[in-house]
Amino acid sequence: MWGITLDYRSELGLSQQIYGSLKARILSGQMAQGEGLPSTRELAGALGVSRNTVSVAYDMLWTEGFIVRRQGAPSRVAEGLQIRQAQKSDESQKDERNKLEIIWDFGTGQPDLSAFPWMVWSEMLREAANSLPARQYAYSGPKGYEPLCAEIADWLFRARNMEVDPEDVFITSGSTQALYLLIDILKHDNRAFVLEDPCHPGIRTMIADKGLSLDWMPVDRQGAEIAALSGREIAAVYVTPSHQFPLGGILPASRRAAMLGLAAEEDFYIMEDDYDSEFRYTGMPVSPIYAMDSTRVIYIGTFSKTMFPALRIGFVVLPKALHRAWRHNRNYMDVQNPVLEQAALAMFLKTRKLDRHVRRMRRLYGEKRGALIGALQAAFGDTVIPWGDASGLHIALQFPGLTFGRPFIRSCEEEGIRISPVSRYCSLAQAHTDKLLIGYGHLNGEQIFGGIEALRRLILGMSRNAIR
Amino acid sequence: MWGITLDYRSELGLSQQIYGSLKARILSGQMAQGEGLPSTRELAGALGVSRNTVSVAYDMLWTEGFIVRRQGAPSRVAEGLQIRQAQKSDESQKDERNKLEIIWDFGTGQPDLSAFPWMVWSEMLREAANSLPARQYAYSGPKGYEPLCAEIADWLFRARNMEVDPEDVFITSGSTQALYLLIDILKHDNRAFVLEDPCHPGIRTMIADKGLSLDWMPVDRQGAEIAALSGREIAAVYVTPSHQFPLGGILPASRRAAMLGLAAEEDFYIMEDDYDSEFRYTGMPVSPIYAMDSTRVIYIGTFSKTMFPALRIGFVVLPKALHRAWRHNRNYMDVQNPVLEQAALAMFLKTRKLDRHVRRMRRLYGEKRGALIGALQAAFGDTVIPWGDASGLHIALQFPGLTFGRPFIRSCEEEGIRISPVSRYCSLAQAHTDKLLIGYGHLNGEQIFGGIEALRRLILGMSRNAIR
Repeated sequence: MWGITLDYRSELGLSQQIYGSLKARILSGQMAQGEGLPSTRELAGALGVSRNTVSVAYDMLWTEGFIVRRQGAPSRVAEGLQIRQAQKSDESQKDERNKLEIIWDFGTGQPDLSAFPWMVWSEMLREAANSLPARQYAYSGPKGYEPLCAEIADWLFRARNMEVDPEDVFITSGSTQALYLLIDILKHDNRAFVLEDPCHPGIRTMIADKGLSLDWMPVDRQGAEIAALSGREIAAVYVTPSHQFPLGGILPASRRAAMLGLAAEEDFYIMEDDYDSEFRYTGMPVSPIYAMDSTRVIYIGTFSKTMFPALRIGFVVLPKALHRAWRHNRNYMDVQNPVLEQAALAMFLKTRKLDRHVRRMRRLYGEKRGALIGALQAAFGDTVIPWGDASGLHIALQFPGLTFGRPFIRSCEEEGIRISPVSRYCSLAQAHTDKLLIGYGHLNGEQIFGGIEALRRLILGMSRNAIR
Repeated sequence: MWGITLDYRSELGLSQQIYGSLKARILSGQMAQGEGLPSTRELAGALGVSRNTVSVAYDMLWTEGFIVRRQGAPSRVAEGLQIRQAQKSDESQKDERNKLEIIWDFGTGQPDLSAFPWMVWSEMLREAANSLPARQYAYSGPKGYEPLCAEIADWLFRARNMEVDPEDVFITSGSTQALYLLIDILKHDNRAFVLEDPCHPGIRTMIADKGLSLDWMPVDRQGAEIAALSGREIAAVYVTPSHQFPLGGILPASRRAAMLGLAAEEDFYIMEDDYDSEFRYTGMPVSPIYAMDSTRVIYIGTFSKTMFPALRIGFVVLPKALHRAWRHNRNYMDVQNPVLEQAALAMFLKTRKLDRHVRRMRRLYGEKRGALIGALQAAFGDTVIPWGDASGLHIALQFPGLTFGRPFIRSCEEEGIRISPVSRYCSLAQAHTDKLLIGYGHLNGEQIFGGIEALRRLILGMSRNAIR
């Protein structure tokens, strides 16, 4: 009857099915403009359903304007319902480049998730869920969960010698969002954002996407060459002073002081990204620029490495002059972080479980680093030169005389090795071409030795070719 | 000794305290460039600590470049460490306008959090935490947790008659982020984003902040006047067809068809924001434009009202041609949502707990709406005209002959009433000045009756003044 087949096992109610069938017939033109519908009694009888079931369907069609009703006359199909169908553009751009199986993944920025205290975290989540008052599940504003801001300020004092007003701590969805928001807040006419060269490609892409201008400071073994900043029109400077990404240098105090001086003189802010300095294997964590002078520094921290990436919690310590703009922008971007993880993380900090976890992981990552250095020695002896401070979850390696370009990376992939050349992070493709980047935080000893051995075979082949 | 006082109860280690004190003295100029430091033996003796404790502190100062070392000579303060201090700019812009106590909050968009099944949700969270494999806690990409995308597609079929490919479902941090990302993806030279007038102020602010052009469609009792779109240069159209915000109309099928036709002809997308149509009190939920033709429609949904705002989960159903741009932009904005709530929500949907909750809340909100209509009848009789379809968590009220401007809203605040005039959501301040907006989802009967009574007293005063 009327092309309607009812499915009694469907989760869709009968009225919905009738409504859906009739609507489809109207839209396809099978029922034309002005065509009369059967009465509700008639259709109900034909389908073996109650008249009310049909009435509900008709009411919907009427409410949405598919049919018109006139006193004492049958309902009719409304006018103007033909849709001029565009050809379906199915540009489904699946980039399914033949994916090779990765056996040894030297990608950076991956903590060891197998060593995280999941049971303790579950416990914190349960406690947080049980203790949060219902009003916290409503919108609570763009700053972040206040007890977490306070705990982060305490943590920064314990772990980084920083004296921070909890009022200045703003929670973010990871440091990526922090950078995204900061770029919008700090952009300033045609002034440039100055990045380290090389640096993480994320911030570079963000700035380019926003159509803002970009400038570079070269990086040497100690970090950014601040002298390069003189005489430029600067919106803000982005640095990783505790452990330059990717080369690993620690920015010396004199360069820090010079940069702070320039920032005050030329009126720009310093974005200090402290992405992994918790894990330093030869002494205390390097203290941040923020601890020298906080007026011109925005400190950016993340729990992606100390906790886990899918937590999506980072933070900024923001000078008061920027609070208002930050609140506005966050509010119109995604409003706020979810509350539950924030509350659980506040407890994790308050009960010093993060301190304990970081101490434990520092030992564990130190051992992994030791294994990696050992494997590199065994494989390459003195022909490899490690760069940077002994900290974090990655290391940059220099192989003097060699060049790691696309063909090499492709060969690695064919052998099951994922690895990045440092040149990928440079403004010019010709820079640092003799360096590779190795992330080791997520690997066990066997993976480290196996991966380095596989790398050795490939590099040995390169050297032979180079010699010929 | 050297101005160093050690605090043995501090959470800061002794080395950290020594390091911090010396650094502070160097930065303040109390220890000048080139000045020699005491030997580690000397300082250790003076402070009563081990020589190693002092060595660790000196190593840090050296690592960070505060001191220099030369073979056989005492360590000395490095050069170039003076910071030219800028005057501290404390523009702390606290907008602490005298906040009045709100007794009756008629703000919109607030679900009743007291009726949410918190125990069931806690159970889901625990199950999710226990069953998620560790790799899910790493970065898992910008699309969203796949099982949740699949459950949302199923839910849209059950609840909205939508046939959705889970491949097209992208998870967002609420619908705010969905709009933010869409504007970036859909912007197109100088073409305008066309909004309903009135509409929610969030999207308007986003477009203005991004410096993009903005245009308007007037809204009548049935929703947006689509005819106004003809002959314009359009980047995208934003509509709330199931329940126009704030006026409440349901966009008729003929206008929907006209808009779809225009979109195909003029090559623009329709952003369909379905923010609260689950809660319809007189029949089935209105079905979305997406169900008529999905090639040109981006469907935007949120769980802020059916679940709770601080969950921060919304989604879009995205045509395939936009997938690549979306992935790129989300990746460089904040990467992804946290995983835990996504997994718990997937279970909540799979076990049909959301269906049950929505059914229950529809009844409850329907009762609240009934109470509100009753209170309005009692207070204002026929002098108030409710606008829009009986659905959602708010209602627009017209008081013919009255004008609700800033002075009225201020009077309301002084009486403890939070309420919005519809004119706040209009492109021109002079439009819809005789209408108020009342959110009732979060209020109980007593609050509704008390608030309407308080409103009656104020409006009575206005009418008297108007008559004089």
